[in-house]
Amino acid sequence: MMDMEKKYGDGNYREFSIHDAPNFLGSEDLDSFLTMAEKQKIILHEIEAVRATEEDPHIPGYENIKLYPGKSIIKKYQSRNILTTVFPIHDDEYLKKLGAEWYQMKHAFKQQPIDRIQYYFGDKIALYFAFLGFYTIALLPPAMIGIIYFVTSWESMYREAIFSVFNLIWATLFLEAWKRYNAELSFRWGTTDIVSSKFEEPRANFYGTIGRNVVTGKPEPVYPKWKRVARFYGVTVPVVAFWLVVAFYVMLGYFYLQALADKKYENDKSWFNMGVLYLPTAIYAIIIGVVNTIYRSVAKKLNDWENHRLQSSYDNHFIIKLILFDFVNCFISLFYVAFYLQDMTLLRSHLAALLITQQVIGQIKEAMVPFIFMRRRKRQVDELLKKTSTVEKVEYYNNEVDDGLQKQVNLETTMDDYEGTLDDYLEMFLQFGYVFLFSSAFPLAAVWALLNNVTEIRSDAFKMCKVFRRPFAETASNIGAWQLAFELISVMAVITNCALIGMNPEVKKLLPTDITPVNTVLIFVLVEHIILAVKFAVAYFIPDTPKWVQVELARVAFKSKQALHKERLDASTAKRLKVQQMMSKDMAKQTSF
Amino acid sequence: MMDMEKKYGDGNYREFSIHDAPNFLGSEDLDSFLTMAEKQKIILHEIEAVRATEEDPHIPGYENIKLYPGKSIIKKYQSRNILTTVFPIHDDEYLKKLGAEWYQMKHAFKQQPIDRIQYYFGDKIALYFAFLGFYTIALLPPAMIGIIYFVTSWESMYREAIFSVFNLIWATLFLEAWKRYNAELSFRWGTTDIVSSKFEEPRANFYGTIGRNVVTGKPEPVYPKWKRVARFYGVTVPVVAFWLVVAFYVMLGYFYLQALADKKYENDKSWFNMGVLYLPTAIYAIIIGVVNTIYRSVAKKLNDWENHRLQSSYDNHFIIKLILFDFVNCFISLFYVAFYLQDMTLLRSHLAALLITQQVIGQIKEAMVPFIFMRRRKRQVDELLKKTSTVEKVEYYNNEVDDGLQKQVNLETTMDDYEGTLDDYLEMFLQFGYVFLFSSAFPLAAVWALLNNVTEIRSDAFKMCKVFRRPFAETASNIGAWQLAFELISVMAVITNCALIGMNPEVKKLLPTDITPVNTVLIFVLVEHIILAVKFAVAYFIPDTPKWVQVELARVAFKSKQALHKERLDASTAKRLKVQQMMSKDMAKQTSF
Repeated sequence: MMDMEKKYGDGNYREFSIHDAPNFLGSEDLDSFLTMAEKQKIILHEIEAVRATEEDPHIPGYENIKLYPGKSIIKKYQSRNILTTVFPIHDDEYLKKLGAEWYQMKHAFKQQPIDRIQYYFGDKIALYFAFLGFYTIALLPPAMIGIIYFVTSWESMYREAIFSVFNLIWATLFLEAWKRYNAELSFRWGTTDIVSSKFEEPRANFYGTIGRNVVTGKPEPVYPKWKRVARFYGVTVPVVAFWLVVAFYVMLGYFYLQALADKKYENDKSWFNMGVLYLPTAIYAIIIGVVNTIYRSVAKKLNDWENHRLQSSYDNHFIIKLILFDFVNCFISLFYVAFYLQDMTLLRSHLAALLITQQVIGQIKEAMVPFIFMRRRKRQVDELLKKTSTVEKVEYYNNEVDDGLQKQVNLETTMDDYEGTLDDYLEMFLQFGYVFLFSSAFPLAAVWALLNNVTEIRSDAFKMCKVFRRPFAETASNIGAWQLAFELISVMAVITNCALIGMNPEVKKLLPTDITPVNTVLIFVLVEHIILAVKFAVAYFIPDTPKWVQVELARVAFKSKQALHKERLDASTAKRLKVQQMMSKDMAKQTSF
Repeated sequence: MMDMEKKYGDGNYREFSIHDAPNFLGSEDLDSFLTMAEKQKIILHEIEAVRATEEDPHIPGYENIKLYPGKSIIKKYQSRNILTTVFPIHDDEYLKKLGAEWYQMKHAFKQQPIDRIQYYFGDKIALYFAFLGFYTIALLPPAMIGIIYFVTSWESMYREAIFSVFNLIWATLFLEAWKRYNAELSFRWGTTDIVSSKFEEPRANFYGTIGRNVVTGKPEPVYPKWKRVARFYGVTVPVVAFWLVVAFYVMLGYFYLQALADKKYENDKSWFNMGVLYLPTAIYAIIIGVVNTIYRSVAKKLNDWENHRLQSSYDNHFIIKLILFDFVNCFISLFYVAFYLQDMTLLRSHLAALLITQQVIGQIKEAMVPFIFMRRRKRQVDELLKKTSTVEKVEYYNNEVDDGLQKQVNLETTMDDYEGTLDDYLEMFLQFGYVFLFSSAFPLAAVWALLNNVTEIRSDAFKMCKVFRRPFAETASNIGAWQLAFELISVMAVITNCALIGMNPEVKKLLPTDITPVNTVLIFVLVEHIILAVKFAVAYFIPDTPKWVQVELARVAFKSKQALHKERLDASTAKRLKVQQMMSKDMAKQTSF
């Protein structure tokens, strides 16, 4: 009942059932039949399925920690810190093989071993790395053009326009191609038919009065929808809007301070004032960091408080909250420079500064720091284990546990928890925005993004294998809300790029001289509408699933249909034969009498 | 194997199989178990499934009419006129009951008996009538506002803007609500899961070298895709483009002639010149009619020649061809008046003329003429049957046929063939365009459309029951390409209405006086983008399937999952018990020895 699909004898993917195991392909050797991710998932499911009943008023030994029927006990233990953490430990042997193919420098230009990643980490994380790899390759052509533009001195009125139009088409094609590749992957992993929300169990932290699930009839917490809607529109929306306004005013403040600093420097070009020139940027960076941290914790609390029933809807609401804020936070200043100040030189330098700073900080924060911490931690654990007290403690838990395993558990307990793919996607989302929204202003953006991502893949891979605790594997057939988020950016990119080109005085010279300004604007609006129409048409007409996957799926469905037909035919023939036999026996009896 | 889903014992819709019949709900009485439409479908399927083999070089008795293996024989007979026609005859008894509820005047304001229509005519036609009814009801609010505007003399700069914005929102909500109602209907009819294209057999007229179907492995004609693509882009696209240009020039010619006539009338207001004033419109109407007829036959030939494998793709390509041309043919002059001439008064009168003329002509063509013809035909057939020669002819076919049936067959042979829902949808599509694209120019359009549709439902119903031969029922789970076509109009309506309002000098007065013309345009472009964004968001966030249908579907899926689980569990328990029994017997034997 866990929505785990495996290849059946007829080539079809069917939900695996232990009672029907022999009919599944490769089930002779159950150890290799299930992926590591699947084994993990089963164990976690079992642990989390231990729920309180009416007879469990509180956690044994902790009378003040009440339990409600239907609530997962393990989560209660965790939330009250009776149990600090539950996690699977790494499989060092497999990880060594995986790491060798994945993040070692000699493989830097090879494809990632996506299937092995899926085997170990599960679909969700494998999909993130597949997306990251696919996107990085897709950055190559824009980066190439960016470099060509940079090294050649070709000056033309068409320069920006050509690059923009290419980028817009490219972004659309990339997102469509990704959907097809995604369909291929989920076909290979047997997750095509997974519609997780149908019977998805409520999140462990979901609370409400005990009622019954309308679909399954099982008892589970029920929380009225109107309350969630009221909370969302009554509190969340105003609070989020407030923070968006804060981010906007911080940005305005920055530009105001910068203008003051510029003026001061202009009047008196001393060394001191040179420093003053950079002061607003520094203050801005700090305030942005602070605001971002506060907003994150507010968003998290709001999201918890909204009490979403399903993990997927919880995740999506959190993603939307973060995307909205980060979008405003990172891009509002660019919009301001581009369309209010209309200063192309400032736009280019501001864009470059934002993109490069964020990437450098990101690389340090994500790869270097955890690496250094990890080294130190390992040393500390080694020292700790040498002391007798720890070894005694080990024996207290289990006499048979071996020293190596104990060491590993202790080490991994001190490792950081992997927070999920959210931050990684968010980083790519913002980068995608920097590269495509204002591509005509800064063609080199794709080059910087490409450079970042080539190392990002390896450092993320290293992090997954060496820095973080092993995460629990999660099922996913696609990248969820992120697909939509990237598509929204690609639509917005059409509007921004058309506006940027329309504002370019060079391009305006191409038009007949007797054209009125109003008609110039109308021409660009028309061009924008045409590009948008073409974009939607392209996205509509490119099938989301590759032809061969469609054929395979249809073939498999046809086979199972035929099998069903045959089964029914056999059953009815058998029944008829039986009746005939009985009748002929009867006849024989009657004759013999 | 016909993709016919019926309700199974567990409440789930499953493909019906005669071998498993007893497990389907209501199958005790097979006569009422299948709808009339389904029975018909089975018979047609059997007739069309008679295909030529290698041993049938030609039609028996007609050596010059060759047969190719895999080709449907009945279609060959029909295409060579050996068999004039194949059609199901009407069931007068059912039809009388259906008609009483459907098109009689006393029921004019009642809901149509959609389920009975589906029972008799099948899903596709029932969906058309459901859509027509739903759309007609949706016209009520805009029509009410139109009337209020007409009778009150409220003059305000907001007048048109309010109506337009209401209409835009209303059109979006209507299309979303229709999708939900559609989902409800197809849930009720068990067509939710029908994905017809998966195993859909090729069209009877599809030709190619004999190969194998990649999915089913059955022999069938194979036609290389590149040839179809080459034909489509190489010939179809240029030819269609040519006709679009022709329609455009005919329109220009009309306005040129009209200007000439206006001038002549202005100079000399004689009775003769009064006639000249209407001459261009008359000529235009005639030429448009001629061009339309030629284009239709060209489009049909091109569509045949493209050699589409599936009926659905054949239909969709034909729909697109007709929509494109009719769109240009009917709307280009309105766009010309609205945005090139920018003459709002002319736009209003032109729109009113087009809409009302088309509706009156449509009503006459669709309802009156066939009705008169039908009466005459009935008389002729009666007279014909009185003659002995005909009666002899009857006995030649079948001695047992009764006179009434023979009379019915003869009568229905002379009836017109129902050409499918295409023209009916096309009419609604154009009407939808007239009402919503320029709603701010002519608020009364909705009133005219509503009046037309109230009679249209009844006259279409009458036509279906009394004028046309009974059509073969077709399976459909939605209205196919038409949904997209209506949605495209509703998107276009945002653009046209924003432009119309933006051009309104009254509305411009609302803006600050010191605003530049360029900024005025930009403001309207911004408003347009916001409305479009809201529209897409609304369409995205309203679920296409009503909650209760989702729950029902999930419940049914859950039940069948549980049943499968139980089945497997039982099977494995039985096996284990058997093994245990055998083992204990063995033990007993060994003990007894």
